[in-house]
Amino acid sequence: MQIHPMWEAYPELQSELMQTIELMDSRIHLRNKSIEHALMDMMHTGGKLVRPAFTLLFSTFGEDHDPRRARAFAAAIEILHMATLIHDDVIDDSPKRRGQSTIQSKYGKDVAVYAGDYLFTVSFKLLTDYSNSMKQMQINTNGMERILMGEIDQMHLRYNQKITVRNYLTQISGKTAQLFALACYSGALEGGQSERFARNCYYIGSHIGMAFQIMDDILDYSQTAESFGKPVLEDVRQGIYSAPLIYAMRKDHSAFQVLLEKKEKITNEDTIKVQQLVTDLGGLDEAQQLAGKYTRKALTRINQLPDSPEKKIIRKVTMSLLDRTI
Amino acid sequence: MQIHPMWEAYPELQSELMQTIELMDSRIHLRNKSIEHALMDMMHTGGKLVRPAFTLLFSTFGEDHDPRRARAFAAAIEILHMATLIHDDVIDDSPKRRGQSTIQSKYGKDVAVYAGDYLFTVSFKLLTDYSNSMKQMQINTNGMERILMGEIDQMHLRYNQKITVRNYLTQISGKTAQLFALACYSGALEGGQSERFARNCYYIGSHIGMAFQIMDDILDYSQTAESFGKPVLEDVRQGIYSAPLIYAMRKDHSAFQVLLEKKEKITNEDTIKVQQLVTDLGGLDEAQQLAGKYTRKALTRINQLPDSPEKKIIRKVTMSLLDRTI
Repeated sequence: MQIHPMWEAYPELQSELMQTIELMDSRIHLRNKSIEHALMDMMHTGGKLVRPAFTLLFSTFGEDHDPRRARAFAAAIEILHMATLIHDDVIDDSPKRRGQSTIQSKYGKDVAVYAGDYLFTVSFKLLTDYSNSMKQMQINTNGMERILMGEIDQMHLRYNQKITVRNYLTQISGKTAQLFALACYSGALEGGQSERFARNCYYIGSHIGMAFQIMDDILDYSQTAESFGKPVLEDVRQGIYSAPLIYAMRKDHSAFQVLLEKKEKITNEDTIKVQQLVTDLGGLDEAQQLAGKYTRKALTRINQLPDSPEKKIIRKVTMSLLDRTI
Repeated sequence: MQIHPMWEAYPELQSELMQTIELMDSRIHLRNKSIEHALMDMMHTGGKLVRPAFTLLFSTFGEDHDPRRARAFAAAIEILHMATLIHDDVIDDSPKRRGQSTIQSKYGKDVAVYAGDYLFTVSFKLLTDYSNSMKQMQINTNGMERILMGEIDQMHLRYNQKITVRNYLTQISGKTAQLFALACYSGALEGGQSERFARNCYYIGSHIGMAFQIMDDILDYSQTAESFGKPVLEDVRQGIYSAPLIYAMRKDHSAFQVLLEKKEKITNEDTIKVQQLVTDLGGLDEAQQLAGKYTRKALTRINQLPDSPEKKIIRKVTMSLLDRTI
């Protein structure tokens, strides 16, 4: 089995992550073997595994740390993440994800919807089978509920040219930061750390998630389709306007108005124009600064963690994930 | 609040069901109030509430029965059911459900996918908040996982004219009977009944679910669109071939071949022809007999329950749900 090369520098964590993937594999059971294999392929191909890595790392700070349970929580987080990705692809009709065909494009909308649903239940079942208290279950299901509430609440801002930076931040908090926050928080509590300690981990995860999403949105404007592994400016076509565009629109809204009014009918030439305008108006630079702000917030809190080899890894991983933002 | 008139004959159960709906309402929280209201509307309009009613009824047999917890489990079952209905409507692009516009047709595919996902987490959170042991959680999440596995496994038989009655039974077992079975089983265990007792309730629910789905499939061939509240033979258009058609094809496959080969391009005139052929070839009668077989199996097991007012209601409800099949 191969996982993302970024973990090669940390052999112990790499081994834990590989065991996490094995656990995920072992929980997928479908009579339809081609869909079963499609889900396993998705697990094995190229996901960075950042979220489960954080769960594993933050679980090491407590006295009651149990590696089996930590891996189960890490697997539950990653499977939940996969479920939301599969459903995102249904909504966006995306042909590609991480350079691979999506479940949706290979098997159709029907399989993709049910495959995502099935993964939700697999994720919950993992939590149920490994949690050692109802309180642990509640923490995880609360977090999951908030993530799905966030997904819905972002919907009503589509194609809204008046979207503000604050709207955007609320959106990505629900969509991305909550899952990172839950990954860190549930890891810390798994290890038996105090609620107060876990709260700090929650904020670390949340700040990392914010910076991570802003960086991802910047890449959408600064890369070509090939290097990105998915179509460029797909978000703009779907009516999702992110930080670089919002900042650029603040400088000169009229430059974008006609292009964006075409909504989903925007042409490829138009999107190249949008990409150029965003760069010229400094949207990428301002978004970089925003990401940098969250990265620094995360690092400040990480520095308050007790010293340990895992603390060092958390800092290094955070910096390498977000390295262009500091 | 109004619920389906079928419960008027049982005032206590009616009151419990109304409190269950109130509990469901109280668990839905979205910043987007129009989607929140759409979900609540769906809860209030016309669902028969058969599944939660069975959970409530079967919970009364045990010594540890706690009405609050029983209502929570009933609510979790109904919310899970709603989530799968919303996703079914996404897959089928259905404009109507129970005579009302679907979430999908009112708010679009994106909202419908996430709304279903959100309801999954609401359902799990209810279980988590009210279960008094990890074992109770495990039973419910096991059941839920099996239901979603069933949803996927039915997919690969679409548009397959060689589908057998056995294939069909496996399909509806996953799609419908499992949820009825879980409703009865988790009710029985909630009340503190033995695993052995709850197993019998599981089979009662499963048999009722089988008969219920066969009846529903018969209605698809024997009713007009108006009286049914949704388009007739929509299943055939989607490639889902149910008992009446399978039995009729066994009599004369060649009569259907050309019509069904059109797959989703089948015309309204074609579907009327299919409907007529199914009736003429005795498909409806044979399907009725099949439903009757499951109803009788359910009633035999119901008779073995200890005498109680709720046992009488279970028998009456089962007979009135499935009355044309005995």
